[in-house]
Amino acid sequence: MMFEERIYIERREKLKKQFQTGKLLFLGNDECGINYADNTYYYRQDSTFLYYFGISKPDLIALIDIDGDKEYVFGDDPTVDSIVWTGSQPKISELAGKAGIHHTGDLSAFRKKISGLDKQSVKYLPPYRAEHFLKLNDFLGYSVAEATAKASREFIVAVAGQRNIKSQEEIEEIERAVDVTSDMHLAAMHYARAGMTEAQVTARVHEVAIAAGGNLSFPIIGTINGQFLHNHYHGNTLKEGDLFLLDAGYETPLGYAGDMSSTFPVSRKFTEQQKDIYRITLDAHHKAIELAKPGVNFRDVHLHVGEVLFDGLKALGLTKGDTKEAVANGAHALFFPCGTGHLMGLDVHDMENLGEQIVGYAGVPKSTQFGLKSLRLGRELQPGFVLTIEPGIYFIPELIDHWESNKINGDFINFNEVNKYRDFGGIRNEEDILITETGNRVLGKPLAKTIEEVESEREKAWLG
Amino acid sequence: MMFEERIYIERREKLKKQFQTGKLLFLGNDECGINYADNTYYYRQDSTFLYYFGISKPDLIALIDIDGDKEYVFGDDPTVDSIVWTGSQPKISELAGKAGIHHTGDLSAFRKKISGLDKQSVKYLPPYRAEHFLKLNDFLGYSVAEATAKASREFIVAVAGQRNIKSQEEIEEIERAVDVTSDMHLAAMHYARAGMTEAQVTARVHEVAIAAGGNLSFPIIGTINGQFLHNHYHGNTLKEGDLFLLDAGYETPLGYAGDMSSTFPVSRKFTEQQKDIYRITLDAHHKAIELAKPGVNFRDVHLHVGEVLFDGLKALGLTKGDTKEAVANGAHALFFPCGTGHLMGLDVHDMENLGEQIVGYAGVPKSTQFGLKSLRLGRELQPGFVLTIEPGIYFIPELIDHWESNKINGDFINFNEVNKYRDFGGIRNEEDILITETGNRVLGKPLAKTIEEVESEREKAWLG
Repeated sequence: MMFEERIYIERREKLKKQFQTGKLLFLGNDECGINYADNTYYYRQDSTFLYYFGISKPDLIALIDIDGDKEYVFGDDPTVDSIVWTGSQPKISELAGKAGIHHTGDLSAFRKKISGLDKQSVKYLPPYRAEHFLKLNDFLGYSVAEATAKASREFIVAVAGQRNIKSQEEIEEIERAVDVTSDMHLAAMHYARAGMTEAQVTARVHEVAIAAGGNLSFPIIGTINGQFLHNHYHGNTLKEGDLFLLDAGYETPLGYAGDMSSTFPVSRKFTEQQKDIYRITLDAHHKAIELAKPGVNFRDVHLHVGEVLFDGLKALGLTKGDTKEAVANGAHALFFPCGTGHLMGLDVHDMENLGEQIVGYAGVPKSTQFGLKSLRLGRELQPGFVLTIEPGIYFIPELIDHWESNKINGDFINFNEVNKYRDFGGIRNEEDILITETGNRVLGKPLAKTIEEVESEREKAWLG
Repeated sequence: MMFEERIYIERREKLKKQFQTGKLLFLGNDECGINYADNTYYYRQDSTFLYYFGISKPDLIALIDIDGDKEYVFGDDPTVDSIVWTGSQPKISELAGKAGIHHTGDLSAFRKKISGLDKQSVKYLPPYRAEHFLKLNDFLGYSVAEATAKASREFIVAVAGQRNIKSQEEIEEIERAVDVTSDMHLAAMHYARAGMTEAQVTARVHEVAIAAGGNLSFPIIGTINGQFLHNHYHGNTLKEGDLFLLDAGYETPLGYAGDMSSTFPVSRKFTEQQKDIYRITLDAHHKAIELAKPGVNFRDVHLHVGEVLFDGLKALGLTKGDTKEAVANGAHALFFPCGTGHLMGLDVHDMENLGEQIVGYAGVPKSTQFGLKSLRLGRELQPGFVLTIEPGIYFIPELIDHWESNKINGDFINFNEVNKYRDFGGIRNEEDILITETGNRVLGKPLAKTIEEVESEREKAWLG
């Protein structure tokens, strides 16, 4: 699937205007063998390649010659033999034509082309797959270290500037992704029961994504140990009283991501303790959505979220002292060691491969403080940005012990009280928003979020 | 998950006996970023690494020093920071200990170790992932072409000889994989209905695999265009009268594969034409199972299957002439351009990465005839081999046209009759068998296979 031709043409025109000279090299992604070359993971094209050329197919290379004002796509046509295995497939020239590209050739033509270029003139984006390094070595003679060091900052800045502002057709596509994402979460709420494994629940969520014709936008986090932030182990059995944290998203066939999190009780109802913590995360969530608008630095949104979380926990006796001072010292990060949100688009962490510093921080160095160093977005928001809002509260026993024994932020934390929550787990809700001219709009089908809404959806898991 | 320690110790002891001298290098698999480095496909360790060391974890390297009789596993321990993201994880020494390995070190220790070795003494298996090539370049200075050329034939022969004969615990694990595989197919039979997309049916099949706690052993083929053998497009809508061909398998958490195919009508019943073709494939299936036993060359099983298919189609008027002569000329391959089966174990095509010629053909060159060149197994069967049995009949319009216009095997094919089946699609049934001392045993839970059994299971799709 592709957008219509003019969209790719316009995107490339805009890109080309950023350059005076040079050759822009776009390395497509290849297949990756799981346990041998021909048993491959599902194929995913590089997002920048998708953005400018739209063709989701392995073994392609594109080149924009700024000096000669020519655009090329290179790749080998399907062989007659391959018809038996995959049916007849379009030629490269046909695919490239759909993106408005009229210069095509096979890979040996590319090899000839690049060997005739001054390699200093070839600009490329940071490689992130092993095959990219092999190609840069093959084509330009760069070692792994050189290939990383020589990626073009000018090229990164131009692409990030363009991809960060979502167009109307991109917003519609992202909204389609978020709609299915919302369905995935609702399916889990309607399905999970004590006695099931985490794998059974995540399988159901996975099914909704695949059935919709696309894929997951990232590996599912579906766990009764929500305190571990990137936990992909799904072997535990759900028990009454547990909290189930689901972080999952859909990727449309065009490659756009949705990303939501929800947290619900394995039992029919939240416990009072769970409600106390849940309400604080929702307050923080609302505060973030209230503040996110053009001109506001998202780092400030994040720090306000930290204050709401800190204040909420103070009311429960877990924290103490002056809130602003505590947050400035990073004391909230004991419970919230990650960020309030990240950019989202063709990648769930949009353009993470181009480097957070340019994409998420507009070149400004990021804080190294524990907590803040994990905030992926710390720049002024602009209309057209799409980002996640995902405050949470996590009780990580190893981290609590580490802070307590090392007396970290001891002036702000009541460790005795905190230790009563050691087995609590974690809570996160996550939605996706678009920054508009005046504020923001939450994208996609609304998902149960308040305590009452979540408990009401959970009832359906008992209706069969 | 791992087998018990003694199993890995015994496997390595057996391997070491095959070598007089040298250092055996085992490159583990790393994570592969989908669209940026940290958004990774599900992790899969290299199968030979799993076989001898059992540890499913990225960024590991193992080394067996035959001369010094020492075994090593190298990898970096988790950092304190990683606890926040993944919870506490075991150290390399702990993991290696479970496989009976007591010499461990970090990756810089490996680097020091290998830089001190004579690189001619380092034996390794054929690289199949881009990261393997990067490592062989880094550690041994080999180019991609050199890294491929210098893989150790002695090492391949030793590993293939050992892994080809399945032990009791492997057979039990494979049988667990086949049981879930059978459940996956039954779920599809109970679910598929006209109006659904292929994606919806494959999503349901995928769910069964993930819910069982493992994964797919290969990407699902689930299609109304069964004539294309490796078709992973799932965008079509099922219609009354279509045949649905499913080829899907489960991989257990220990890494062992199941692999089955089934073909069923989208409507409640097969049409008479579908029954005619289905019966022929079943006859061929039974013939293959009747013949597969120790001492028989699987190439002969395959050619007998070709004869049964050819005879069956002759009775329908699609083929003509002397059957043995036709099969010797490869005329059956118009309908059956692939192989009757392949070895299966830790890989669904077992050890395909080690090269078919040694693994499946014991070093004997394979035929280059169309059809036979796609047979992956052409050696004498031995007790302990596990393989698939998967005859099929496919009507590939492009292939029919190619043969007709090029007058290929015109003496044996009634093209006028064949053309009446242009829109038929394809049929395949597939089971997994173990070669025993006296014959073979079909592994796992039996799945509906006869016309009556399949139609009876299909009824359940209408029961809700």
